[in-house]
Amino acid sequence: MADAQNLAIIGGDGIGPEVVAEGLKVLEAVAGAHRFNTTAYDLGATRWQRTGEVLPDSVLAELAQADAIVLGAVGAAPGATDVPSGLLERGLLLKLRFAFDHYVNLRPSRLFPGVPTPLAESVTAGKEVDFVVVREGTEGLYCGNGGVVRQGTPAEIATEVSVNTAYGVERVVRDAFERATRRRNKITLVHKHNVLVNAGGLWRRIFESVATEYPGVTTDYLHVDAATIFLATDPARFDVVVTDNLFGDIITDLAAAVTGGIGLAASGNINPDRTFPSMFEPVHGSAPDIAGQGIADPTATILSMSLLLDHLGLAEEAARVEKAVIADIAGRTAGQRRSTTEIGDAIAAAV
Amino acid sequence: MADAQNLAIIGGDGIGPEVVAEGLKVLEAVAGAHRFNTTAYDLGATRWQRTGEVLPDSVLAELAQADAIVLGAVGAAPGATDVPSGLLERGLLLKLRFAFDHYVNLRPSRLFPGVPTPLAESVTAGKEVDFVVVREGTEGLYCGNGGVVRQGTPAEIATEVSVNTAYGVERVVRDAFERATRRRNKITLVHKHNVLVNAGGLWRRIFESVATEYPGVTTDYLHVDAATIFLATDPARFDVVVTDNLFGDIITDLAAAVTGGIGLAASGNINPDRTFPSMFEPVHGSAPDIAGQGIADPTATILSMSLLLDHLGLAEEAARVEKAVIADIAGRTAGQRRSTTEIGDAIAAAV
Ligand SMILES: CC(C)[C@H](C(=O)O)[C@@H](O)C(=O)O
Ligand SMILES: CC(C)[C@H](C(=O)O)[C@@H](O)C(=O)O
Repeated sequence: MADAQNLAIIGGDGIGPEVVAEGLKVLEAVAGAHRFNTTAYDLGATRWQRTGEVLPDSVLAELAQADAIVLGAVGAAPGATDVPSGLLERGLLLKLRFAFDHYVNLRPSRLFPGVPTPLAESVTAGKEVDFVVVREGTEGLYCGNGGVVRQGTPAEIATEVSVNTAYGVERVVRDAFERATRRRNKITLVHKHNVLVNAGGLWRRIFESVATEYPGVTTDYLHVDAATIFLATDPARFDVVVTDNLFGDIITDLAAAVTGGIGLAASGNINPDRTFPSMFEPVHGSAPDIAGQGIADPTATILSMSLLLDHLGLAEEAARVEKAVIADIAGRTAGQRRSTTEIGDAIAAAV
Repeated sequence: MADAQNLAIIGGDGIGPEVVAEGLKVLEAVAGAHRFNTTAYDLGATRWQRTGEVLPDSVLAELAQADAIVLGAVGAAPGATDVPSGLLERGLLLKLRFAFDHYVNLRPSRLFPGVPTPLAESVTAGKEVDFVVVREGTEGLYCGNGGVVRQGTPAEIATEVSVNTAYGVERVVRDAFERATRRRNKITLVHKHNVLVNAGGLWRRIFESVATEYPGVTTDYLHVDAATIFLATDPARFDVVVTDNLFGDIITDLAAAVTGGIGLAASGNINPDRTFPSMFEPVHGSAPDIAGQGIADPTATILSMSLLLDHLGLAEEAARVEKAVIADIAGRTAGQRRSTTEIGDAIAAAV
């Protein structure tokens, strides 16, 4: 049995702490003899409003020592005009992804039995919708390059620079091919190389070159615009999708929507080289409108714990969490309202 | 009655010439006493393969004299490895959009009665899905700024630069607000200002400032990732959507998918100041796999002719084309197969 593992917990804002509590409950229940030590970190909009601090260096250094990080959600209420746009996203969430080199942003999409989807039966009936998006997490338009000149004047110019390196693209493409070999051996590159000829050319060449090392994996390419069409009309065609940071952001929200909504969408910000802790979080945000009412669905966070367990080498426990979630979902009936803790309790009891 | 108007016709590749022929047939039928002179231009992959020319300056100069341009689709068969990626997109299609200052890329999305959508009935039944995306057409990541260094080496870097100007953003936002006043007085800005803080800040500030001039228009903001969710789960919420070039590209394909597919999606590349001819084209591509079989659906092109008529001041004729299309669609039955010309003939007879 492994030693105890240290988890850094960032509940964050809004429903973040509520759903994280249920995630940890399930983690505890499935852990058995395996020990997790948790340390809570107070970060997010509320902390900033109180102290003016987003992510002190000392906290970043402490987080770096954890075996993994659990994040709820960060973000102020939409009306909170005191929080500048991007402050928490760039200063906290993306800072962690970049500082800890989370180059694989893993987002599984599975249409579980019994889950209502906005798609017509003709699109989904009898088909298995089960794919995973491997979104690059450390480059592209997310790197924060760009600027503004002559702000607020009629001559203002604002730029954003997408930076893509062979180093960054190759490692994530390779990770995606590896995952494809552990799944149904199919991989789709999503980009827009007919317009973004520089970045697209790089992605395409590297994709094609790595593909030669995986002759058993079938490859496919879709422009990002066409990819959204297929996500709505034939999501069963996908197995592993690999794409850049921004395209990954966009298509994973759509992927979540067609497989039951972001209330179910889990994600891992993974550093496959284990040079820094990986971070697990639901795809959804802090949902300030329903915070404090105990009605947030913790399922996405609980599924993120399954990804965490898997990453920490506890594959059997990861599978048990996923199985318990699937069973819980199958038992849900339309219109039924269960509280956040009721769902957490039920899944914790079943793992 | 206006003088005859001169239309430049670029059929292009694949199914392009086939669908354009039907579009012109309907235009001729609805024109009545109004005269259109058409001049065909041979441009696209086939021309390039034959002559090595994409868009000679002399042709560009001639096109500039037209009253409007009708474009089918350009693009080689996927297997045609001799056509470099982006050559026709950047060198022809985008070159025309930029050279003729098509800053409004207009893409209406309407779920016509009887059209099959991939969305569940619960999403669409009893609701009117009828919105228009105003996509910026001359800036952003489409401007072709960026480059590659150390190509083909492990140290390769590829960049793409999104350029956004107050000048460019304000004119398209203003156009979108004007359209909202002629529709249901609702407008949604789609961007990603929490990550793309420079460009997003510019878009947001200009949007909010123009909004003060339109107190009767309700404004809304969505991050692009969230926008894809709503397009799949509640498309009826949209009226006018205004967004940048790349986001517009992505969400209009999804919008087309949920309202019946790109076989029905029309578009106008519009220069509202009329300093250069506007260009009308279906959203779909050259579909080389079905070219030459006479089975391509010309509906998107015919609807684009409605946009063209409207732009040229023939609003009544534009409405007649749209009405004839709606009636034709309502009469279609599942599994029915009509040829390209049958559909064109039927609509031409009905206008
Ligand atoms: C909150 C935001 C910065 C973030 C992103 O864009 O990556 C979110 O949308 C996500 O997908 O995790
Ligand atoms: C072909 C391509 C350059 C074009 C675009 O990206 O604008 C197309 O996708 C469109 O939407 O008209």
